[in-house]
Amino acid sequence: MRKERIQAFELLQKVRSEKPVVHHLTNWVTIYDCANIVKVLGASPIMAHAPEEVAQMSGIANALVLNIGTLTVEFVESMKLAAKSANQKGIPVVLDVCGAGATALRDESSLALIDQCRIDVIKGNASEVARIAGENVRTKGVDASRVEADLEIVAQRLAQARRCAVVITGKEDIISDGTKTFLVRNGHPLMGSIVGTGCMATSAIATFCAVEKDLGLACCAGLVVFEVAAECAAKKAKGPGTFKELLYDCLYALDRKTLESSQRVYRAP
Amino acid sequence: MRKERIQAFELLQKVRSEKPVVHHLTNWVTIYDCANIVKVLGASPIMAHAPEEVAQMSGIANALVLNIGTLTVEFVESMKLAAKSANQKGIPVVLDVCGAGATALRDESSLALIDQCRIDVIKGNASEVARIAGENVRTKGVDASRVEADLEIVAQRLAQARRCAVVITGKEDIISDGTKTFLVRNGHPLMGSIVGTGCMATSAIATFCAVEKDLGLACCAGLVVFEVAAECAAKKAKGPGTFKELLYDCLYALDRKTLESSQRVYRAP
Amino acid sequence: MRKERIQAFELLQKVRSEKPVVHHLTNWVTIYDCANIVKVLGASPIMAHAPEEVAQMSGIANALVLNIGTLTVEFVESMKLAAKSANQKGIPVVLDVCGAGATALRDESSLALIDQCRIDVIKGNASEVARIAGENVRTKGVDASRVEADLEIVAQRLAQARRCAVVITGKEDIISDGTKTFLVRNGHPLMGSIVGTGCMATSAIATFCAVEKDLGLACCAGLVVFEVAAECAAKKAKGPGTFKELLYDCLYALDRKTLESSQRVYRAP
Repeated sequence: MRKERIQAFELLQKVRSEKPVVHHLTNWVTIYDCANIVKVLGASPIMAHAPEEVAQMSGIANALVLNIGTLTVEFVESMKLAAKSANQKGIPVVLDVCGAGATALRDESSLALIDQCRIDVIKGNASEVARIAGENVRTKGVDASRVEADLEIVAQRLAQARRCAVVITGKEDIISDGTKTFLVRNGHPLMGSIVGTGCMATSAIATFCAVEKDLGLACCAGLVVFEVAAECAAKKAKGPGTFKELLYDCLYALDRKTLESSQRVYRAP
Repeated sequence: MRKERIQAFELLQKVRSEKPVVHHLTNWVTIYDCANIVKVLGASPIMAHAPEEVAQMSGIANALVLNIGTLTVEFVESMKLAAKSANQKGIPVVLDVCGAGATALRDESSLALIDQCRIDVIKGNASEVARIAGENVRTKGVDASRVEADLEIVAQRLAQARRCAVVITGKEDIISDGTKTFLVRNGHPLMGSIVGTGCMATSAIATFCAVEKDLGLACCAGLVVFEVAAECAAKKAKGPGTFKELLYDCLYALDRKTLESSQRVYRAP
Repeated sequence: MRKERIQAFELLQKVRSEKPVVHHLTNWVTIYDCANIVKVLGASPIMAHAPEEVAQMSGIANALVLNIGTLTVEFVESMKLAAKSANQKGIPVVLDVCGAGATALRDESSLALIDQCRIDVIKGNASEVARIAGENVRTKGVDASRVEADLEIVAQRLAQARRCAVVITGKEDIISDGTKTFLVRNGHPLMGSIVGTGCMATSAIATFCAVEKDLGLACCAGLVVFEVAAECAAKKAKGPGTFKELLYDCLYALDRKTLESSQRVYRAP
């Protein structure tokens, strides 16, 4: 496996200068942090879910996030309206299959979104993505459980089957666009000690997809930027509470030297 | 333009001693921060939106906040019920026209609230308020875009037309009650680096309107107190994450000397 | 009144090793903090409210939290479905009667939940619990008002009448299982300066109820752990903003020595 030098800082600079609008239909738990991570990256978040306005909002956005964390049947219908508008405009749609595997509603809703709309990035932890890919795994809540299948293969096959990029987050993140598969080996254990880092990673990914058409590269860059900031924050933090605040400080101040000396992206053979 | 010495600290002391109840129907993104800013000011927030109880809640409140950040059609109906109860009781109603100009639903809902209920304060950024005032502007998300019209005139005319106070936030804030127009030149650029400071300012304004009948003065005082606290926080902050936590610390500890030496309120000619 | 040595640290260790899943139907104001307190305790939060999935979610959980802070009629129906599933599985159900006394909807919904489902812990401040117990008191918002009745008696009688544990939080917390009544004298005034500590306490209680069948003991342990962490945070905090972040840091790092030297639990005669 060889180390890959991706232009993550150049893409971060593009986010900061172009300030893309990232429309979210997301969960009520981490909605603030989803919006704030986009803002601190230098971009512009919109959170709106009313069926009467989602299509219009996606029409003024540069990327769309769908996160099913606290879904309802009606909320998923709004997601479909937003996604169809995004598809028509040609902006990337990122789906976080949060909690897939835990209930039938989550599985069915995720698959309905993937079947009825063009989804450009499917993102989740190992058990969530494996469930969407048709693997037989058990989910305990929204935390990753051990998945027997080779996750790189799962990601690559799902990417090929759905013609999208697939991101499986974990101790090391797997990103596949069906052709190329990357591993991101950044981040810090404190990320798993608080609620919301998974959702924030999704919003970061969408923000980078808004400025870069190569979605595999955009997903890698979004994850690397977020996780290198987390590493910086962990160095200064005294625990999970201060870690979270410092994560915003570090992301806001992230410079080329820090990012390029810390990023650990690998290309799978 | 002459500097105005407003009794902001006296009003803050009144908030701290009377502890008014501020009922909110607000958005799901910043709902915690809206409640917490009221609490840290020394007052008592209530967040409740069920149509079955909003009238009763407004009936025990001293001010009402309506913020359309994540509106739905049903939510706006609850807002009308709450506003009518507030009107009947005679407590001030503050409307944040968050995102007006971005979708038809936001424009129509804002105007329906203003037409069907007595709104005492209309608050937004330049493009949002200009849209409500009938100016022709474009909104990119909820961030202010350049508005050609003279904003002081926009605020004054809207205040006269709707017989309410109007607040246009921005690098300098404009407050008009139709007769008097003020500028507040406090605040710090870090306020624009995080999500929620606009909503928090609205909740601060409503808290001051709960204890002061001169709404122009109350709006100025709420903004000045919030923004001077932000200036204190910015001095100590290491970025947007620590800034937000320190904003609460500084607001909680804000004393007469700091406030009076820092407040920059001007009376427009 | 004699001091009681409860095995709070042993239960905290049990939470950290067993990592119970705590399913919440809670309010939109503090939903992040409810989830995060569970996470930082070392357990696993799930927030889900769709009627189509709540029963299935409670079926994979180890405890259920019902918090009516921003209730709607439909949301309470989802709570009933979740509670019935929890009852069937035999996991503890903790009800925070947030805002009871403020509106008819809150009173009726709380009583409907208690009547139609098995509730294992009823928790609120003095005026909220007194209202549920049938005492005649007034609530100003969700803050405690002075209640004339002897609160220990109120707690004990309600516990006996409803065959559950009752927790009344305040400057000193009262916990009764109908037979034994305890007082917890930990905590810090800064807890009352921010929004959310009441809800977080409820989620902490539920987390401990997930690993300990003696519900009176579990409630005491949850409160003691949360409030000793708050005491540690208050020592280092510079105000309510930094207090909240440090609360997470201190809870995450809480060790046997600190907890055992600080816990102040008393047994009522």
